Amino acid sequence: MDTQPLYLRLSGHYRQAIQSGVLLPGQRMPSVRALTRLHRVSLSTAVEACHTLEDEGLLEARPRSGYFVLRRRRVDIQPPSEPDAGRKLDPAQYVGIHDRVSDFVAKCEFYPLLTNLAGTYGSPEMYPAEALKNAATRALRKHSQLLVSAPDMRSDSPLNAVLARRALDAGMRLSAEDILVTHGCIEALNVALRAVAQPGDTVAVESPTYHGLLQILESLGLRALEIPTSPQTGLSVEALELAFRTHDRIRAVVVMPNFHNPLGSVMPDPEKEKLVALCERQQVALIEDDTYGALGRDDIPLKAAKAWDKPGNDGNVIYCASLRKTLAPGLRLGWVAGGRWQARIQMLKYTQSRANEALAQFTVAEFMASSAYDRHMARLRRQLTGQREQMAEAIAAHFPAGTRLSVPGGSMLLWVELPPGTSAQAVFDAAIQQGIRVAPGSMFSNSSRFDHFLRISCGFPFSGAVDEALRKLAAIVAQNAPRPAA
Amino acid sequence: MDTQPLYLRLSGHYRQAIQSGVLLPGQRMPSVRALTRLHRVSLSTAVEACHTLEDEGLLEARPRSGYFVLRRRRVDIQPPSEPDAGRKLDPAQYVGIHDRVSDFVAKCEFYPLLTNLAGTYGSPEMYPAEALKNAATRALRKHSQLLVSAPDMRSDSPLNAVLARRALDAGMRLSAEDILVTHGCIEALNVALRAVAQPGDTVAVESPTYHGLLQILESLGLRALEIPTSPQTGLSVEALELAFRTHDRIRAVVVMPNFHNPLGSVMPDPEKEKLVALCERQQVALIEDDTYGALGRDDIPLKAAKAWDKPGNDGNVIYCASLRKTLAPGLRLGWVAGGRWQARIQMLKYTQSRANEALAQFTVAEFMASSAYDRHMARLRRQLTGQREQMAEAIAAHFPAGTRLSVPGGSMLLWVELPPGTSAQAVFDAAIQQGIRVAPGSMFSNSSRFDHFLRISCGFPFSGAVDEALRKLAAIVAQNAPRPAA
Repeated sequence: MDTQPLYLRLSGHYRQAIQSGVLLPGQRMPSVRALTRLHRVSLSTAVEACHTLEDEGLLEARPRSGYFVLRRRRVDIQPPSEPDAGRKLDPAQYVGIHDRVSDFVAKCEFYPLLTNLAGTYGSPEMYPAEALKNAATRALRKHSQLLVSAPDMRSDSPLNAVLARRALDAGMRLSAEDILVTHGCIEALNVALRAVAQPGDTVAVESPTYHGLLQILESLGLRALEIPTSPQTGLSVEALELAFRTHDRIRAVVVMPNFHNPLGSVMPDPEKEKLVALCERQQVALIEDDTYGALGRDDIPLKAAKAWDKPGNDGNVIYCASLRKTLAPGLRLGWVAGGRWQARIQMLKYTQSRANEALAQFTVAEFMASSAYDRHMARLRRQLTGQREQMAEAIAAHFPAGTRLSVPGGSMLLWVELPPGTSAQAVFDAAIQQGIRVAPGSMFSNSSRFDHFLRISCGFPFSGAVDEALRKLAAIVAQNAPRPAA
Repeated sequence: MDTQPLYLRLSGHYRQAIQSGVLLPGQRMPSVRALTRLHRVSLSTAVEACHTLEDEGLLEARPRSGYFVLRRRRVDIQPPSEPDAGRKLDPAQYVGIHDRVSDFVAKCEFYPLLTNLAGTYGSPEMYPAEALKNAATRALRKHSQLLVSAPDMRSDSPLNAVLARRALDAGMRLSAEDILVTHGCIEALNVALRAVAQPGDTVAVESPTYHGLLQILESLGLRALEIPTSPQTGLSVEALELAFRTHDRIRAVVVMPNFHNPLGSVMPDPEKEKLVALCERQQVALIEDDTYGALGRDDIPLKAAKAWDKPGNDGNVIYCASLRKTLAPGLRLGWVAGGRWQARIQMLKYTQSRANEALAQFTVAEFMASSAYDRHMARLRRQLTGQREQMAEAIAAHFPAGTRLSVPGGSMLLWVELPPGTSAQAVFDAAIQQGIRVAPGSMFSNSSRFDHFLRISCGFPFSGAVDEALRKLAAIVAQNAPRPAA
């Protein structure tokens, strides 16, 4: 039985019609009155369904005329190019990512910020500030010695239980004891890598991949082996299998199967299953970063790769996640479920920063245990869907010919391929001086393969200011794109 | 001019008289009335001075008779033995400290706790729970988006400014920019060591030293070189100088000059100065852990070794500290001022766990900026002084002949040398089964030199239950002590 609210079923019906071309751009949507009659729904349900599709960027309201299917300039634009699966793989030791990120950070600090298109969060208004504040205040009142009591070794965080329960949505069966709360996903990745690899070892990663991961590898003295990765379907399991045959000392594979940063790719479930089985066979730890996995669609929750892992202490997948993108960007909360490495991970976390403090955990646990969390997530997902569509349309409208992008089905990151030969670093340097912050592709790889890519974030609501910033950015791209031969 | 409150000057006058033997144990203290007359102070000042000395365990009130100087059983007890400065030094690579600490933690979790003599915190009542709770609530109200805003790269923590100001007391001149807030002193030590040493390098440490430090060294693949350290005056700078001459690859020296854990030792200022100069000359980083330094006496603040360091980015001392022992055991707040390694430390901290969340920093900054912080610290120091005296007296009264200890001038840790041949591990194993938690000396060294030592904490107020636990502990020690040859 379908338990979705009626308005979501109705909007889903028309979304499919639009996406499959049954309703074409420019065509008129049935009026709200017509919808009530056609589908025997209330007026408010019909209105809400139309608002949902408008938020998603599929409909536009024209004054006194009703809703129309939005013209999609994007139909002309190509998705980013697929990787060359046959290229030779080279593990890189010193990667200089610290320097690239330092340069990025220094310039971001130096120039006044007008429009941030480099963030990986939603805007504050998209998160439940008031509810979290109240939960924190209640926790302080209820546990009057919370801030002055040393955590007892025996104490169990109430957060662990609710995280285990919420993990069911991603197909994982975890108990509270399988979970360790960390200072963000970053700390989770650190202790996971330290648990399975030693300095000098090689770690297979997606290409491109999250610059924070490359920094961790660099700081731990690990070599990164970049595996070809599709902007659509994520890591090439075949290429990984080849890498295992040709490279020694691969001690771990780090992947973001769901809404990859920066690609936005999602691995199909059969690929996830193959990946888990391959790593298990090779006895190589699979570290999964699922930071953005919950930011897809309400009706189709994505499965974590860990869903195919052996249970409990037998597992070979180290699952890492964060609450910063989904719930509370101002808190430093992540978690890790490390399977057979969990004991070592716990000791390393203890040695690195001890247990997280209790206040943030109490705060979030209370909210996540309630249905208010589900409502928040539904709203957040809907907002992000609209923002992705609007941002992609604007890029398609403004950027020069030869630009390529695809719109992922979740999260807030667009991976934009500029016309070949365009230096994304030069674009970044010019844009930051105008107060526009974007992330150049060179930050996401040890190689130069992505030097003509930009990661553009649509975490913040689309607005006239964002549109204006994209126009300026597009002009900068056009200036930096090589002229076609006469 | 002496700015101390009158009652503290008065109590100081009599403390000196008692400690120098002018007033002997069992002798009557001048009556409160007599004090008002003798020193021209108010009745309440005289009463408060007597209470202070009673809290410190120097006086006892006898009903209807007034105050008497407490009989000090401790006069018969010897301080712990001094190290053998001439012994050969061996750097140890794999130290197995993880296993020792894991064993300790597992047993602590398994047996129900009755009396915790292994903690390194005061009891919750000794910290300003209400004031911190109110500060947190105010911060949540004032910054309504605190929990849902991603920290901006440019943001300055208000905590940095107040930490810099408070650091003046320890003789340091720091600016807010010289300081990085961390997840406790543990994280500060981690990033400090990672900044200056590579796996395989050697780090000179005190012997014994804090087990948390040995765990960090083990987890980072660093070798620990234990330098002879006096229970009274701390690290032997001469022995360290010798070690520099005989050992390569010493990349850092880690010390706790003030109220060492577990020794309680304090390095005399000239030794601190020599130590800083020696490390500077050798171009070896000096990492200073000052977790307990502020827990001494109000009238004699201890200087940090960093007080003798070059200023700003020229400094060779990496100063690490924590707010967990002094102010808020329930928060995860520490900090580091890394001199010439600060940029690298900042990048490593960013790579390891990003910036600390803002709520705890706002909370603590507000309180530390006010005079309430000074009043709290004065009260805390007085309470700890009393608790140290009472605990030491009880140990002296109950423990078998041959036990040795000295009472440090601050903090909450007593380092107790059991009769030679007594296994502290056996004592720990028997005590934990009776619900009494102590820290065996084997946790504080790679060697077996401290296997007949116990670290006993007096962080919690002395009580009948604590006295009873010490009696039981003493009986266990007596059972485990080797019998003198007939």
